[in-house]
Amino acid sequence: MAVKYELIKECKQTGARLGRVHTPHGIIDTPTFMPVGTQATVKAMAPNELKEIGAQIILSNTYHLFIRPGHKLVEKAGGLHGFMNWDRPILTDSGGFQVYSLSDNRKIKEEGVIFKSHLDGAKHFFTPEYVMEIENSLGADIMMAFDECTPYPCDWDYAKHSMERTLRWLKRCKDAHKNTEKQALFGIVQGSTYKDLRIESARRTVEIELPGYAIGGLSVGESKEIMNDVMDYTVPELPKNKPRYLMGVGSPDALIDGAIRGIDMFDCVLPTRIARNGTVMTSKGKLVVRNAEYAEDFLPMDEECDCYACKNFSRAYIRHLIKAGEILGGRLTSIHNLRFLQNLMADIRKAISEDRLGDFRKEFFIKYGYNK
Amino acid sequence: MAVKYELIKECKQTGARLGRVHTPHGIIDTPTFMPVGTQATVKAMAPNELKEIGAQIILSNTYHLFIRPGHKLVEKAGGLHGFMNWDRPILTDSGGFQVYSLSDNRKIKEEGVIFKSHLDGAKHFFTPEYVMEIENSLGADIMMAFDECTPYPCDWDYAKHSMERTLRWLKRCKDAHKNTEKQALFGIVQGSTYKDLRIESARRTVEIELPGYAIGGLSVGESKEIMNDVMDYTVPELPKNKPRYLMGVGSPDALIDGAIRGIDMFDCVLPTRIARNGTVMTSKGKLVVRNAEYAEDFLPMDEECDCYACKNFSRAYIRHLIKAGEILGGRLTSIHNLRFLQNLMADIRKAISEDRLGDFRKEFFIKYGYNK
Repeated sequence: MAVKYELIKECKQTGARLGRVHTPHGIIDTPTFMPVGTQATVKAMAPNELKEIGAQIILSNTYHLFIRPGHKLVEKAGGLHGFMNWDRPILTDSGGFQVYSLSDNRKIKEEGVIFKSHLDGAKHFFTPEYVMEIENSLGADIMMAFDECTPYPCDWDYAKHSMERTLRWLKRCKDAHKNTEKQALFGIVQGSTYKDLRIESARRTVEIELPGYAIGGLSVGESKEIMNDVMDYTVPELPKNKPRYLMGVGSPDALIDGAIRGIDMFDCVLPTRIARNGTVMTSKGKLVVRNAEYAEDFLPMDEECDCYACKNFSRAYIRHLIKAGEILGGRLTSIHNLRFLQNLMADIRKAISEDRLGDFRKEFFIKYGYNK
Repeated sequence: MAVKYELIKECKQTGARLGRVHTPHGIIDTPTFMPVGTQATVKAMAPNELKEIGAQIILSNTYHLFIRPGHKLVEKAGGLHGFMNWDRPILTDSGGFQVYSLSDNRKIKEEGVIFKSHLDGAKHFFTPEYVMEIENSLGADIMMAFDECTPYPCDWDYAKHSMERTLRWLKRCKDAHKNTEKQALFGIVQGSTYKDLRIESARRTVEIELPGYAIGGLSVGESKEIMNDVMDYTVPELPKNKPRYLMGVGSPDALIDGAIRGIDMFDCVLPTRIARNGTVMTSKGKLVVRNAEYAEDFLPMDEECDCYACKNFSRAYIRHLIKAGEILGGRLTSIHNLRFLQNLMADIRKAISEDRLGDFRKEFFIKYGYNK
């Protein structure tokens, strides 16, 4: 199998796991946060900077790469690793989430999804088999199965119907996946916010033996409480000897609460997206560095941070860059936010190793200014 | 004096000079090319990358910094060096060129220029004295006098009138300049494309003793032949023991032809501007990397280049990034173009030291594909 999970220890205070995911391109310390490189680049970042901030794995998007530049071109370039010159692990999503987001421009059938490209309106047809072909061309260490990400809210009947189809598609994905030696296929648990469906989905997804499992369909508009509830009853259904990936989560509170519930992997565009708009995460909470109050503030964005941006530039300078539309502005805030999350994950791993992730949560929430 | 020029040797084949400019923030090997950081940042580049590509001095724009974030803020941040965290030499222009470019939104008087900000339409009044105050606040190692950059073409009468005013303004600049220990004021020779005016301007500008002199009003639309002619009769009027700066020039042919005529310093937005649009300078000539022909070209932009972009990424990948509007695209092409020019200047300096800049010109022009 391309990917193996090694459990190092469980936190005695919580359900959190300290572990390692072994992949063809190296080891990932878990719990981990994966920066998102939608179009074969983590926005504003170069690969050497991603290494500098400590990223051990990045995510890229099958839908976007299929549309542009095309998976065949990426394959010719030596897969995503060669194309973007990233020699550490990569995970590709299945395009499911993106395709469903096209709403009016897609139609779901049992066979697959017909959709129109957001770029040129060209019609395409994603089936589980075709998505596996695309992901095999991209060559990521971990590839996600083609699922349906149900919207929120979603009625029970639709959630059940959709979950069943996602299970049927998962079997088709597994059968179609051609490069099992070097690429690990992960299944995705769905079932919206219904306990019975989530548990059933988890059990039947796990019955399809795979190197890892994800929880999908969360962080799509529901409250943090609901998300935590779903994890509370879903994660126990997942095997202990496989990595568990909570899709689309990247806010500090959700990362900590996910880790506490036994999640090993996370991803989200949040840190880089808010960065480009001038918002950064700091040891004292969110800071909107583009705000006028920082115009003459010569402190670093985060005095406790060790990133290139915080070691070298002031809030006043970064605010100026962002106000002036200068590329370096979004670069510096992106570097910082990604480093902040890498440091947070390292802190989480340390707290697990010391059996004190519950205490860490309390301390962090107070420091960061969360109201609980 | 803040700045001293050291002449190392003259090329026996041409009039080119190998030298060093000594400044409060370090030594510049000349002939040199200065990347332009209009708004206190060389677009898309971080200071550590500027050092990596070998930039010894950068230029920044007084007009832009005055408008945003304001020179008083920059002064509070420790001047431009502190504000943007660049510890090597900086040159600031005077805002003259930018203010005149506002055309309908400015009025030139003997006292100075009234203009409206391109950002918010607010009225401002630049006088030689005020510009010196601003440039003193910015704190660059070299600051340019407030001159009038005449348009091209320009009739003799206006060019004469304007040149006289530029001379009167230069005296006012020299009188108003307050930080002569740490900042060197350079005068600017004008006179459009008229030999008599250029020579008169040069002689009378040099009479005003200053640490360096620039040739302004070129590269504004006239042909390369005219630009070379103007240098041919203007440069000999400039003193040998002071640096000579040709403003606004950055194409490889003009850099070589300027060096041959005894120019020591150049600047231009060209390399970074064309880079962001997907055009790069290579050892075999210009290459429009965003063109379809490079879609599946896995060679580096320039096989002979040693920059981070060329050592790590293919034309196909960079084309993809630029087509997709990804920040990394413009970053990589900017790194390359600036490195290309730094390497070119190093080659020019080597050719001068070997008394063969004339031969180098011939070889380079053939290799680059210039038709002469």
